[in-house]
Parts: sequence; structure tokens; C-alpha cells
Amino acid sequence: MLGNTFGRLFRVTTCGESYSGAFRKNSDIPPELWGGLAVIVDGVPAGLKVTSQIIQEELDKRKPGQSRLHTPRTEADKVYIFSGVMQDDRTTGAPVCMLIPSSDIGDYHIEQHKGNKDLLRPGQAAYTYYKKYGEHSDYLGAGRASARETVARVAGGAIAKIILDSMGIDVIAFTIESHGIKAGPFSYETAKQNYRANDINCPDLDIAKHMIDDLLQVKKEGDSCGGAIEIIAKGVPAGLGEPVFDKLSATIAHGIMSIGGVKGIEIGDGFGVTSKKGSECNDTPYYDEETRRIRFKTNRAGGMLGGISNGEEIRIRVAVKPTPTILKDQLTVNVSTLEPVTHKFASRSDPSLVPRIYPICEAMVRMALVDSILMASGSRSITDMDNRWDKL
Amino acid sequence: MLGNTFGRLFRVTTCGESYSGAFRKNSDIPPELWGGLAVIVDGVPAGLKVTSQIIQEELDKRKPGQSRLHTPRTEADKVYIFSGVMQDDRTTGAPVCMLIPSSDIGDYHIEQHKGNKDLLRPGQAAYTYYKKYGEHSDYLGAGRASARETVARVAGGAIAKIILDSMGIDVIAFTIESHGIKAGPFSYETAKQNYRANDINCPDLDIAKHMIDDLLQVKKEGDSCGGAIEIIAKGVPAGLGEPVFDKLSATIAHGIMSIGGVKGIEIGDGFGVTSKKGSECNDTPYYDEETRRIRFKTNRAGGMLGGISNGEEIRIRVAVKPTPTILKDQLTVNVSTLEPVTHKFASRSDPSLVPRIYPICEAMVRMALVDSILMASGSRSITDMDNRWDKL
Amino acid sequence: MLGNTFGRLFRVTTCGESYSGAFRKNSDIPPELWGGLAVIVDGVPAGLKVTSQIIQEELDKRKPGQSRLHTPRTEADKVYIFSGVMQDDRTTGAPVCMLIPSSDIGDYHIEQHKGNKDLLRPGQAAYTYYKKYGEHSDYLGAGRASARETVARVAGGAIAKIILDSMGIDVIAFTIESHGIKAGPFSYETAKQNYRANDINCPDLDIAKHMIDDLLQVKKEGDSCGGAIEIIAKGVPAGLGEPVFDKLSATIAHGIMSIGGVKGIEIGDGFGVTSKKGSECNDTPYYDEETRRIRFKTNRAGGMLGGISNGEEIRIRVAVKPTPTILKDQLTVNVSTLEPVTHKFASRSDPSLVPRIYPICEAMVRMALVDSILMASGSRSITDMDNRWDKL
Amino acid sequence: MLGNTFGRLFRVTTCGESYSGAFRKNSDIPPELWGGLAVIVDGVPAGLKVTSQIIQEELDKRKPGQSRLHTPRTEADKVYIFSGVMQDDRTTGAPVCMLIPSSDIGDYHIEQHKGNKDLLRPGQAAYTYYKKYGEHSDYLGAGRASARETVARVAGGAIAKIILDSMGIDVIAFTIESHGIKAGPFSYETAKQNYRANDINCPDLDIAKHMIDDLLQVKKEGDSCGGAIEIIAKGVPAGLGEPVFDKLSATIAHGIMSIGGVKGIEIGDGFGVTSKKGSECNDTPYYDEETRRIRFKTNRAGGMLGGISNGEEIRIRVAVKPTPTILKDQLTVNVSTLEPVTHKFASRSDPSLVPRIYPICEAMVRMALVDSILMASGSRSITDMDNRWDKL
Repeated sequence: MLGNTFGRLFRVTTCGESYSGAFRKNSDIPPELWGGLAVIVDGVPAGLKVTSQIIQEELDKRKPGQSRLHTPRTEADKVYIFSGVMQDDRTTGAPVCMLIPSSDIGDYHIEQHKGNKDLLRPGQAAYTYYKKYGEHSDYLGAGRASARETVARVAGGAIAKIILDSMGIDVIAFTIESHGIKAGPFSYETAKQNYRANDINCPDLDIAKHMIDDLLQVKKEGDSCGGAIEIIAKGVPAGLGEPVFDKLSATIAHGIMSIGGVKGIEIGDGFGVTSKKGSECNDTPYYDEETRRIRFKTNRAGGMLGGISNGEEIRIRVAVKPTPTILKDQLTVNVSTLEPVTHKFASRSDPSLVPRIYPICEAMVRMALVDSILMASGSRSITDMDNRWDKL
Repeated sequence: MLGNTFGRLFRVTTCGESYSGAFRKNSDIPPELWGGLAVIVDGVPAGLKVTSQIIQEELDKRKPGQSRLHTPRTEADKVYIFSGVMQDDRTTGAPVCMLIPSSDIGDYHIEQHKGNKDLLRPGQAAYTYYKKYGEHSDYLGAGRASARETVARVAGGAIAKIILDSMGIDVIAFTIESHGIKAGPFSYETAKQNYRANDINCPDLDIAKHMIDDLLQVKKEGDSCGGAIEIIAKGVPAGLGEPVFDKLSATIAHGIMSIGGVKGIEIGDGFGVTSKKGSECNDTPYYDEETRRIRFKTNRAGGMLGGISNGEEIRIRVAVKPTPTILKDQLTVNVSTLEPVTHKFASRSDPSLVPRIYPICEAMVRMALVDSILMASGSRSITDMDNRWDKL
Repeated sequence: MLGNTFGRLFRVTTCGESYSGAFRKNSDIPPELWGGLAVIVDGVPAGLKVTSQIIQEELDKRKPGQSRLHTPRTEADKVYIFSGVMQDDRTTGAPVCMLIPSSDIGDYHIEQHKGNKDLLRPGQAAYTYYKKYGEHSDYLGAGRASARETVARVAGGAIAKIILDSMGIDVIAFTIESHGIKAGPFSYETAKQNYRANDINCPDLDIAKHMIDDLLQVKKEGDSCGGAIEIIAKGVPAGLGEPVFDKLSATIAHGIMSIGGVKGIEIGDGFGVTSKKGSECNDTPYYDEETRRIRFKTNRAGGMLGGISNGEEIRIRVAVKPTPTILKDQLTVNVSTLEPVTHKFASRSDPSLVPRIYPICEAMVRMALVDSILMASGSRSITDMDNRWDKL
Repeated sequence: MLGNTFGRLFRVTTCGESYSGAFRKNSDIPPELWGGLAVIVDGVPAGLKVTSQIIQEELDKRKPGQSRLHTPRTEADKVYIFSGVMQDDRTTGAPVCMLIPSSDIGDYHIEQHKGNKDLLRPGQAAYTYYKKYGEHSDYLGAGRASARETVARVAGGAIAKIILDSMGIDVIAFTIESHGIKAGPFSYETAKQNYRANDINCPDLDIAKHMIDDLLQVKKEGDSCGGAIEIIAKGVPAGLGEPVFDKLSATIAHGIMSIGGVKGIEIGDGFGVTSKKGSECNDTPYYDEETRRIRFKTNRAGGMLGGISNGEEIRIRVAVKPTPTILKDQLTVNVSTLEPVTHKFASRSDPSLVPRIYPICEAMVRMALVDSILMASGSRSITDMDNRWDKL
């Protein structure tokens, strides 16, 4: 397996899966060391204040079991900083390692998974992992394809958040659609104020209620449903992103599309442009006396031109598929006998990914932004280099 | 500038811009060496038959001036193989270099661009490049943000195509929407048969006529319009893509979103999932007697599960914005005086990117697939490694 | 900080430092989670048998306090597997994470280091880290420049060893010089048999005694001394290494030169070639009936031609500088007052790096070999690809 | 093939071989486009003055046929800038492409190489390439293993030189040994003054004469010989290089060891440390009133501590093997018949690599330095980032 690192100069490497620790249960070893998720963040500048409390706050946003909309499964998701932070909680420039031990490694789950080992769960990755890794691929709890993997993304994104906070850049993600019920559009200010005021993170508090009622109904049916998330990055300066293959748009799309369950991404007007004319799409530039820089009268472009940030808000929308695990009879195949089987997979999963996916979207955009900021810090022009050089 | 390389084991590095050759016009130097686009493809297996004819065929698909829907600008886009191919047109394993000299470096264009140097063209990258690279950034013909950059992508993709052809993998891209006129859905077979039968590459020949009439009307108005492209990859085996951050979906999204003018990408049902239930989204797996492998009764997932290919057709849709350059008065700003200005930018550009973007979409998906195939060839399981090892 | 990852397809990412855990001492947290070293190995094939015992065996080779030649400092260096290994101790293809908690985080050491914070230790990295990371750089125990960092290299190399073992490739490193006392040359067989039979890992048992006596004398003087290590990789097939910039020789040199204290590396005849003629250097190829392949009558090249392995033993020699920390008065500078100071730094360090550096040399060469094997497995020729393709 | 790119943020990608253009000889195509070497340099800051004259000057240093010590083969090695440079010869931030067409593609050479196709040239890469790439590997003039490949390195290094010149960093390489005749040590000033005053680039003019006489004698015998090069980088600030795996020492060793014919590299005292004590190796730091920074009374470390530059001169020595092609009968094997054969390979090659390798050594160190400078420019400390941020 490869692909467990994101970023070029801000590099987040993650690992871990739900149940491997079960095979290392041993009374001689503290349970926290049996297994879990780990993250190594390389490229963290020295002098950054990083505490486990700050990281924990982000992790708690995605923690299951917090509302009726979540899986009843409880995971502590407690984070331990293991390296890279020293006196006064300051980073030293060394890689920051964070551990999130798995606290919920019950024999029960293993037995349950083993029992259904040969039945392909529709909509899940077991088949493709088997084709890729063969008989030893992780058949318990989906391995690296488990939603649990995203804990490590959020931990990495929390470090990015601390850097962005120090620069006045804010990234928020919120729900704009659940099972066809749409909300918005929202200004950054409205979204910021309200998006965490309800269990589904929708800034329109009335529509949020509808979404929640509908979702509880879907849950009751044993089904699940999809939705859409909008992400806004506020305060991003112009000039981020590398031309051609590594545009900021491409880097962000890479990160967002790598989240399990995401089936589409749009920037700015997105798929709305397919029916529009150029005269309806171009944003008009003007000189803003107040900020003393070029701004744009509209932001249909979603904050990027030529794939490089233009100083306006970055606006992204993300399509999230329904949780594939549902509590209904489903037709599938037994990979051992090759016979068709109808089975109801008993599993504790969320009826929708939407209420818990926003911190992961925020994390990926934050990592992409910090990485792009560091890329942009290096080498733009020789004048710029000369100025920096003098200080070395 | 960085970001001019795409791929990990199949690495396509491109360079070049529209007009830099103008500054090297010199009677002592053959005009083909003044300037142009170049591509170095590293990771090409030895023994592949590569001719300039094969590459040229792909380049000709995106060449301007071929229909009423194109810019009248003519560029020869003639490709020369410069390295990596030897006896019997076979690759040696060395990097393949291709040159596409700029044939259309007129002083006229330079003067024209210089004259408008201080006026920001709405919807274009000049501002963001200026913010990134400063006073020496390329102000002529958009530099690396020019659509001309994509010539090199198509050349790189043509090498990928030769590899995929040898494996029975076919990638096609075609128009499914232009200025709100929609067509499809199309089976691979229908699309394959018809998509190059008209100037707008839409497999529905009747709707294509409507699209073309509409587009000519938009052109007449001096305006432009957007549209949507669908891409199908047929014959892709299960198991491509790396878990977590480098899923096949993420790699493809990275590549597609890096194309200038693309504002959105969907895989499978894409944004359609936002209103659906899990029971409506999951694809049912079954054992297919004929091919002797697991297949799926539907393909809502678009050929990937957990971001890894599942053996079904890969299906992607792409939102393409209207060409930003339009022949209408537009309000903009003079970056020198900071005053607002109304200007009609005279330029020879396409009224829509849609008719010429399909070979670029094909190229990016092909490169992503070959790169993912090579990644998947290395290290999946120790059994697999042992078998290969014996042959070393 | 960056640069904490080694490898392209076999990627070892490490982190951790000696004393950061001291700032997280907390009775609510198990001491093993306060801090330490961590390694994430990405690119491990599925199905590999990995146990903490196998890893521990390698770690124990570099563990301090095992002989009179070592620092008296004791570190448990106990390894815990944290992810990537499941049923029957088999890898799943997911990244393997290993934790080595710091067991020796005494307040005493911290106070000691703090007291001398402003005095530059001659020969050590404190000054360069300060210039790079500023006031928050790790001033305790050298941070990432500490020899303790190499624990994580050895853990990563242990995974590589398991892969190489399964392929019949053996890598050994042994001492050929200490403080000017030279031994060898040794055949692989002799070296293999004897190199771990004494505290200085020299295959010549008599000379080893001299080396040890001399080293104890140097230690008694409060001084330290340098030496040289030879590395042999036996069983490496021809064809590893990428031409031009990423030759196998370059990849290995990169890895070896990244070990703290290494000041030189030679391949084959190394610096011996500077006085030789071509007729004395070329190895004569012949067809070997027994192995049915081309072999070479001599191995002056050290197992590589054009930087690619040629099937003969890879032979490398490494120059190791004396431990910079010595128990003698040394003139240095106080970075705060900028005044010269004479100081005797009290510290528990090895009188020579030589007795404990061999497992680190082995680890780096093993990682470089596995990485090169995976690189070579992908894409050599189209025939080769076709054969593999059929099996997907 | 992979490995044709060097660098992380200053990325030099090269391609090309001696004779592939022979297969594209065609009267319709200008001979300059038949084939040759190409370089794409990504990461070049905007605003740098780059002319073909500056690049040509560096290429001319390694051009063959300039003295009695060179191969009589003549290659024009004329460079053409193809992209990335515009008005007033200034870079725009876009990748700089340079082409060096092969001017000497005679049918004669091809016939000659074809005739000996089955005879392995002792000391050369044909066997390892064959094992790696199979029957289609380049059998003419050694392909990418040809010394001709280094033309592209020098072109890439020339861009790095322009950047370093603007920063007051000078890199020089010169001969310190030829066939056992040693010269030096030299101060930077002495070396700088004299190293290009004779055909063998040895700063000691008397010893240079001995070296040249000896080399001509070796040449007369139809043999070749090895030697050693020293490289000094003057003016490098403290703080370059990333800790752990990507130390500056490791990056430079990677680059230098990737040059064909190099068998060893030393930094500072290099292999001299193997017989020394710590008290003899440590450099004493002091505060230098004049430069107002910490300096070192000696420079045994060769300008790096912990693998990071310390502000002193970087000093490297390189072992260069004798040219493997000699005009003497050599025993070898016919890979087709597998029979031993004695053959005298008629070829026009240098009797020593030493007189022409110095510009290549300079190029690799320059590229490594610029790359490390750009890496160091990004992300050292949060204070540093904040300062830069304000200017975006």
C-alpha cells in the first residue's frame, strides 16, 4: 500500500485501522499501545504552540455517538502528542507525531466480521482491497477504507489549523443538502455563526430541523442518505497554487476526492457553468480603496483564476454518497461459494455521513492550503529570494 | 514555478508558452528552435512502438481552426520526437522527449498583448500570475495559463494511450452538455461509435446539431458558453489506485481539475447522490459466469469502490466554464492607474472550450491510469513479489 | 523540518527525539505514551510475517549499554507494533507503524542540558539547528540530530530485512577499521561467520582484540575515535537502480551519508581507483555455466555498472567520524555572551560510533534495496508489463 | 526508466542519448530536430537573466576535443533556449527548457556499435541495461549511461549557477589527483585563481604538468586512468539541508554519486577521520567580530554539522574511475554465443574522465545547493513565516 501521505512541504503521513490491535491484546502491554491510528506531520514550522487540547477539540467534532444522527458506536478518539513538541508546548521544527489509540477493540466485532468475511458488503471496498492485496487484506472493519481512518486526517488538519489561525485564514465546512433538502446559499458570516448550532451543521436553522427529521425517518427505515457540504476558506491571499498540474484547485480536489464517500467536487459556480455564457461567468475586477488591492465584484470563480488563488473567498461544494451500510436486506455474493445471497448486515453505522464529514473536509482543505502556502513561500521571484537571502 | 510534472511512476513533465520564441527570432537559428512546447515522459517501458504519426493523430484532435466552432487561429502543432525512441520506432526505456515548435509567433500578437498589458482580462489568470511571479511574469498570451499548454498534455497522453491500447483499455471523452442543452446518457458503445461524428463531439447526432446551432448563435453575439464532458474508461481491471490519499478517484480528480476551465468533477452518480438513499445507491455484486469474475448489476459508483477500481467502466463528468475571452465590452481595471475601464478585448479564441477539450480530458485520464497501473504493478503482496522476483 | 521520509515505493517516515516526552510527564497518561520514536512504513506488501520479536532483534543490535565499548546509558528501546499487522502476524498491505517509547526521560538530563544551553558543543549540530529553526529549536539531547534518531531507522530497516530474507538477499555490515587499526579484506563468508563474535564487530578476531584494547585506552583518556565500516549485500539480482540521477549507487549513498557521523562512502574499489589504470579496474565478464548467467571474474566495481546492480556482491565502505562528545576540556563559545569558554561537557556517550553503527548501515542499505526492487518491479519493458497485466 | 529528475523545489529533468536521432534522419526535418539532449528546469524564480551565451559558456567547459587530453570526438554541444525566458532575457517563473541537438550522428558510429552489439564492453553499463530493459535497450553509445548525458546536467547546473552568482555563492571543482599523482591541499583562493589555467584543471601548475605528461603516456599505451576531484562551495550560509534523511551531505552525495564513473565521495576530512580522535576532529567555534557571526577555527567538518551547512566552506572530494573504454585487447563475453572473446574496442574516448568531469561536479553541487536553498526558504519557523506572510 502506498498513498498514505498528503502534501509536498507540509506532509501528513497517516496509518492505522480499526481492529489490528485486537491481535496484540496482551496483559503485559498497556492497552493504549495495542493499536490505533498514528499521524506524523513533517514540515511543521518551529515555534508553533500545539497542545493535545487543541487537537482534541478538532477530533471531538468528528467523534461518533454525539447525537441521534450518529452511529451509537463510541470511540474515545483521545489524542496523545508523541513527538515534536517541547517546552511551553512549542514545536521545534521536528515532525509532530500524534497517537490515537483504539479504545474499542472488542472480540465481539471481530467475530461478527469474521462470520461475514465471505459476503461482499454492497457499496464497500472489501472487493477492491481483496483484488489489490489478496488473501491477507484486512477483512475487519474495512481496514484503511474505514471511516475511522479520517481521525488521523482531522489530527493532521488540526496542526494546519493552528498555522492558518495565526495567519487569519479561516476554513469552515457546513451542510447545504441532505437527502435532497437544500439550504443556502450562505454568506461566510451567516455560515460561521450558525453552522455548529445543530446536529447536522446546517447554517439555516429551520431547514436544519427538516433535514434532521427526515434523516431520523430514513434511519428508522434502516436506510441511509447522501447530501452536500460547502466549504469556505476566508482570508486566503492571492498567489497560492502552482500552475499547470498542481493548481490550487487540483490540490484541493485531490484532497477532497480522497475522502471516502465523496463522489463530486465543484469550485465556485461549479456545474452551474455548464449552462452559462461567458458574460454571465466572468467576475469584474476593480481596485478596492479600503484593502488597497484588486478585488472582484462577484465571486463566481470561487476564489481562483487559472487555478491560483485570487484573494477572494474559496468556495467548494462536495457531493457525499449515502452510507453504504444499511440495515436492510441486500442482495450480494458469497465470494467463496460465488452464490448470490440476501443478507442484512448488522452494523453500527451512521445513517448519513453528512453530519460528521465536515471536520474532515475542513481538515483536507486546511492541509492543502498550508502546503500551498509553504510551496508559495519558496521561489516566486528572484527579487523575493534576494530579500529573504539577506536574512539567512 | 513548480507543478509542471504529472505522475509518480509515469511522469510527464511539460513546458512552453505561446510567445517566448518571439524573443529568440534569429535568422541563424531554424525557426523550429525559437520556442514552443516540450514534453519529457519518464517511466515509458522499453519496447513500445512510438511514432510521431501516432502522437500527431492525438494532437490533431485538439488543433484549432478545424471547424466553425474553433478559434480561427491556426497552429500547426507539429510534433517531433527528440529522444527515447530508436530502432523500429521502439522505446528503449529512456525518457521520451517530444517537441512541438510554435509556428505562429507573429510580432502582431505581441504588440497587441503589450498594448493591453495593464488591463486585466476578466476571468483570466493574469492577475494571479502577477501576484505570484511579479513584474516579470508572462503577460503575453497567458503564459503557462494559456490553453496552448494543453498541447503538451495531449502529447504525453498519447504515449499513455499506446500503453493502454496494448492492454485493451479504451478511454473516450465526449460532450454531454453545451450551454444548457443536454444529451445522454450514453452507453460506451453508442458514445464510441458517434462521438467524433460532429464538430461538438456529442454522440447524439440530433442534439449535436442543436448544440452547434446554439453555439454559432452565441459566437455571433460575441459571447461564449460552458458545457459538460463525460469520460468513460473501458477495460480497466480491478485494483488500481492507492488507499487513503492517493485513491484512483483522487488521482483522476487532480488531473482533471488541473485542466484550465474545469470547475467541477463527478464520479459515477456524482452530485446525483446528494438526494438519494443508500438502498438506491449501492451496486449489487454478483459472480459473472462469462468473465469468471465478480461484477456489479449497476454502476452507480462509476467504477470505483473505496477509491480503487472495481473492474466496471470508470465514469466521470466534467464541468467546463465558458471561454473567458469574449468579444463584448467588459468592465475591468487598469492595474497601472487602478482606474476602472470598459474594454472589448479583440482576440481569436474559441466560443466554447467544449469542442476542443475532450482530447485533453482523455489525455489526463490516460496518464492517471498508466501511472496507477505502474504503481499497482510493484508491491501488492509478497506472493506477487515472489513470483516476479523469480524472473529477475 | 522536512526530510524525515526515505524511499519512493518503500517509504519509511520517522519522528521522535530524546527528551520531548519529559514535557508530557503526567500521571494520567501511561509513561509509554509520553514520547519516543515512531516509524510509519508505507509500501509494505501484504502477507509478510512481521512480529515485534523480529523487529526487537534488530533494535537490540544497536541498543546501548551492552558492552564496555558503549555508553553506560541504558535505553530499553522496546518496540510496539501499532498498525498494519493482523491475523497470524501478517501484514495487510496497510502501513506498518512501530512505536519505541522513550524510557529514560529523567529530569536530571533536562536540567543538565538546560544548564549548558548557551555553550556550543564542538562537532555537534546545535548551532546549525539554531540557525535553521531559531529560538524554539530542540536544545535537549540534540533533537533529531541525536544518535537516538537511528533507532527508528533500524526499525524501518527490520521490515526491509524481512522482505529481503524472503528473497535470499543478505546485507551485513562490519568493522574494518578503528582508530587507524585496519582489518580485512574479508570474503562475505568470513565476515558473515565472525562479525558478531566480538564487541567491535570486526570479523578478524585477533585484530578485533587490538581494536578493543585501543578503544578502551582512548575511552580512558576521555577521548573518542573514528573508524570504517564495510557493507556487503549478497544475492542482489542484476537490474536494480534507475539510470542517471537515481542510480542504485546514488540511492545508497544518499541513505548512508544521511547517517549522523558518516563523512565518506566508497563503492567497490572506491578511492583506490584514483591511482589505477583502466586495464586494472575493468572486471572481466564471462558466462557462468552453473548459475547460467553472466558473471564477472573480479568485483572491483562493487556490484554496480552504470550505477545499476550487476548481480555481483555490492561492496560499500563508510568513514565514521569520532564521537564529537568527549570528556576533555574543549574551547568553545557561549552563544549568549559570545565569549570564548573552556568547558568539559559531562555526558554519557560512546567512545566510538563504530561498535554500534553497523545495524544502522545495514538498515539504510536494506531500505534502499527494497525501494529499488519495488521501483524495478514496475515498468521495465512492455513485454514484462503485458505478462503481469494478464494476472490482474 | 525513471530517475531522470533531480531536485525537490529546483527540479532538473533531463533526457536524450547519443544516437537516437540517427533513426529520424529525414530531409524534411531540420537536423537540429532529429534528436539530442533536452533539459526542463522547473522551479526557476521569475526575473532571472538567462541567455544561451551564459549556458553555452558552461557547456563549453565540458565539450570534448579541446585539448590533447580529450577524446578527439567533436560535438558542437550548442544550446538553444526553448521556453521560459522572455523579454530582456528574463525568466517568467515558467520552466526553462534547453535543447542541445546532437550534431554528430554519423551512420559510421551506428554500424560500428551494431557490429559489436553482442560483445560486452568491460566496465560499461550495457549488461545492466540489458538486464533491466531487455532486448530493446539502447545498445548504441551506451544510451543514458553515456557520458554525453552529462551535457544536460551542466545545462541545468548553469541555471543554478546564475542563481548562486546572484547570492555570492561560488562553487569550483578542480583536480587534486591523477593516476596517483597528488596535489594540494589548496585554499579556495589559490584554487580559484589557477584551476582553469591548464588542461587538467589542477591548481598546482607544476604538478599539473606532471599529471599531463603522465596522462599522455597512459594514452599512448592505449590505457586510461583515474583520479580525484575536489569541490569547494564558498559563501554558503548556515542552515541548508533537512535533518535526518535529507541532510545537505546526503543530497550532495546523491547528486555526485549519480555521475557516471564516480566511485567515492568524502566530506571535510572524509576517510581521514577513520584514524583520528575526537579531540583531533572537532572544530572550535568562536564569535567572529568582523562578520558578526559564529565561525569555526578549523574546517575539518567540511562545512556541515549534523548534515546542515554551518557557514564555512563546503569541501568535498570525489573518486573518479579510469575511463572503462581502453584501446587494448580485453577478454570479454559474447552474450549471444556465451563464448569468451578477446577484443580491442576501437572507440574515441577520453584517456581520463578527470579533465572533463569538473564542470559536472560543479553542476551537481550547484543544483543541490539551489534546491536546498529553496527548501530552506519555506518553513523554518513560524516567526519567519509570519514575516513573509505580511508581504503576500
